Amino acid sequence: IKSKLPQVGTTIFTVMSKLAADHKAINLSQGYPGFDCYPYLQDLVTKYMNEGYNQYAPMSGVPALRNRLAKKTLSVYDVDYDQEEEVTIVSGATEALYAAITAVVRPGDEVILLEPAYDSYEPAVRLNGGVPVYVALNIPDFSVDWEKVEKAITPKTRLIMVNTPHNPGGYVWTQNDIDTLADLVRGREIYIVSDDVYEHIVFEGKAHIPLFTHPELRKITFACGSFGKTFHITGWKIGFCLAPKKLSAEFRKIHQFLTFSTVTPIQYALADYMEDPSRYLYLRFFYEEKRDLFCKGLESTGLKFTPAEGSFFQCASYGHLSDESDYDLAVRMAKEVGVACIPTSVFYHDKRDHKILRFCFAKEDNELEKALKLLQSGL
Amino acid sequence: IKSKLPQVGTTIFTVMSKLAADHKAINLSQGYPGFDCYPYLQDLVTKYMNEGYNQYAPMSGVPALRNRLAKKTLSVYDVDYDQEEEVTIVSGATEALYAAITAVVRPGDEVILLEPAYDSYEPAVRLNGGVPVYVALNIPDFSVDWEKVEKAITPKTRLIMVNTPHNPGGYVWTQNDIDTLADLVRGREIYIVSDDVYEHIVFEGKAHIPLFTHPELRKITFACGSFGKTFHITGWKIGFCLAPKKLSAEFRKIHQFLTFSTVTPIQYALADYMEDPSRYLYLRFFYEEKRDLFCKGLESTGLKFTPAEGSFFQCASYGHLSDESDYDLAVRMAKEVGVACIPTSVFYHDKRDHKILRFCFAKEDNELEKALKLLQSGL
Ligand SMILES: CSCCC(=O)C(=O)O
Ligand SMILES: CSCCC(=O)C(=O)O
Repeated sequence: IKSKLPQVGTTIFTVMSKLAADHKAINLSQGYPGFDCYPYLQDLVTKYMNEGYNQYAPMSGVPALRNRLAKKTLSVYDVDYDQEEEVTIVSGATEALYAAITAVVRPGDEVILLEPAYDSYEPAVRLNGGVPVYVALNIPDFSVDWEKVEKAITPKTRLIMVNTPHNPGGYVWTQNDIDTLADLVRGREIYIVSDDVYEHIVFEGKAHIPLFTHPELRKITFACGSFGKTFHITGWKIGFCLAPKKLSAEFRKIHQFLTFSTVTPIQYALADYMEDPSRYLYLRFFYEEKRDLFCKGLESTGLKFTPAEGSFFQCASYGHLSDESDYDLAVRMAKEVGVACIPTSVFYHDKRDHKILRFCFAKEDNELEKALKLLQSGL
Repeated sequence: IKSKLPQVGTTIFTVMSKLAADHKAINLSQGYPGFDCYPYLQDLVTKYMNEGYNQYAPMSGVPALRNRLAKKTLSVYDVDYDQEEEVTIVSGATEALYAAITAVVRPGDEVILLEPAYDSYEPAVRLNGGVPVYVALNIPDFSVDWEKVEKAITPKTRLIMVNTPHNPGGYVWTQNDIDTLADLVRGREIYIVSDDVYEHIVFEGKAHIPLFTHPELRKITFACGSFGKTFHITGWKIGFCLAPKKLSAEFRKIHQFLTFSTVTPIQYALADYMEDPSRYLYLRFFYEEKRDLFCKGLESTGLKFTPAEGSFFQCASYGHLSDESDYDLAVRMAKEVGVACIPTSVFYHDKRDHKILRFCFAKEDNELEKALKLLQSGL
């Protein structure tokens, strides 16, 4: 069998998580919470299972959850999405991204990827016959180099992938970024897929500004979100997509044949759970404490960094200390230092090595403290 | 936005289920159980949620469930699949089908679809640039016309979609079917995707013979299965794929970017629940009683039918009674008779009308009895 994705090997998340397990290292590599979701949310799932909500949900999601998301979007961002036709529940943000890319990309279409980029974008583009066009973000702050983006746009550009707050960089798009993007795409047949999975994890002094708050961008944007990152349930595989009617209609045609629908009792549980907005609005405070704890500890390691503006990842560079490749260092750290992280070179198509490591700080405080001690003595 | 699936409208399952709801008709259209799964299975999900199994499962599935499936496949079918590299858990059989098709179909490749065909095959083929080649099954028994299949095979044929037990027809492939298929594909670069979601619903006198029991076919087959159909949990969206190592490796590359992984506590729960094989082996007796109840009632309706050999669908024809199209009749029955069913013409690319209706008998006995009374008086 000839591979359609010859360049794809075992994902870095699997590799590093396995290394961490094998060497009993603290796993700050794969991005998932090292603590549990709230028992009340589990109780709600149990309740709906026990009440018999165990067969197919409607293809687009249960109305109660679509309604809840539309209300949240209106109250938090002041943007109105029609719950019937513009909100779709899917089996995780990964599915949302794949379905949105599939809805618009045809063979030969160019898709602009801002690197470092999450690892699922490129294969999704390629499987649809699209041609990735890579634009590097600025180092070390992962902001967007708009001149480079402008140069990358051609008549064949069909899609630009956006990710804010950014993984791995922690950069949060500004109003200026959004306005500049709107200027660049105006009058062209370009769509946007915005990966907003860390929308509720943005720290003091910054705010998540969804692209759809810009009236022109709202018309061309698939906004992909995650319940997993927001409610500490990455293993429940539930996400969503907000998009204008015509785009949602095409998105749903794809979703229908990718997974058809998403776990019914979980959908009902989340609809109830989200009734109280504090259950997601608290998140930025919760994670800001963790970021601060982690950054304070990092100070004495010799690594260089500026605190992440958003997401639950902290990047740090070591180029001033060593010439080792980030991949080799990450592997060695998992084995010898006892802390697993992600080398950011894996997020570049050409494995470009800026000697920057990504640490996930979505862990219990005592685990972070243990990791910091190991880093302080082991680096 | 130009649609990549212009021919896809609202799915017939959504249309008919909505019609049923609006007109308070008994819904024998969409294929899902009208009763609940067993409380013990729900309790196991609750247990694993409460124990904190709420973050990402491994991409290929939790080892306990892969192990259980490998053991089941060995004990029930006497075929050995390696749990590490040949068994993958996904978010429903729909995802399994999409991922398998995506793994092998490239633009221009021909894919043979035996019609009537489940509605997700063709869009999955088209989204990958494949060219569907349609071969009609024999009417009225939905057996395979092997001469037609042989004629349809060309040097461009890359994939043949198989579905046994067959939806909507209820036909179960024989050893002769399987041997004939093996003869036809020998020496060609053709893969098989086998949709086996009704594997445990096969009635007395027949047996499900998986294609992978044939040593040559095992090498080229993606066998797609469903936990939803087997454990009355269609809303939990969990399925699987068995395939030889090289095929599984390509399948997993696709799955990784479609959904990455599948709901963790559900995977653990199913691994425990399946420890007792009677929990799935009883299924054929459970559904055979329902089929018999339904068929007995159908006898006095004037509809013509032979009892289904497998699946939880019963087809019946009315061409000797009326010239109305099956679609119009189905809509009228939902509105006027009070029973919703599926017109089988929707499963043909050319909407070919054999004046055959499909009824789902996965319902409580008293609901089936009510539906039969309505059919007896209303037709
Ligand atoms: C789907 S596993 C990867 C989790 C994640 O978002 C990350 O680590 O970047
Ligand atoms: C995914 S909804 C359709 C359910 C089904 O398998 C059928 O009715 O044929």
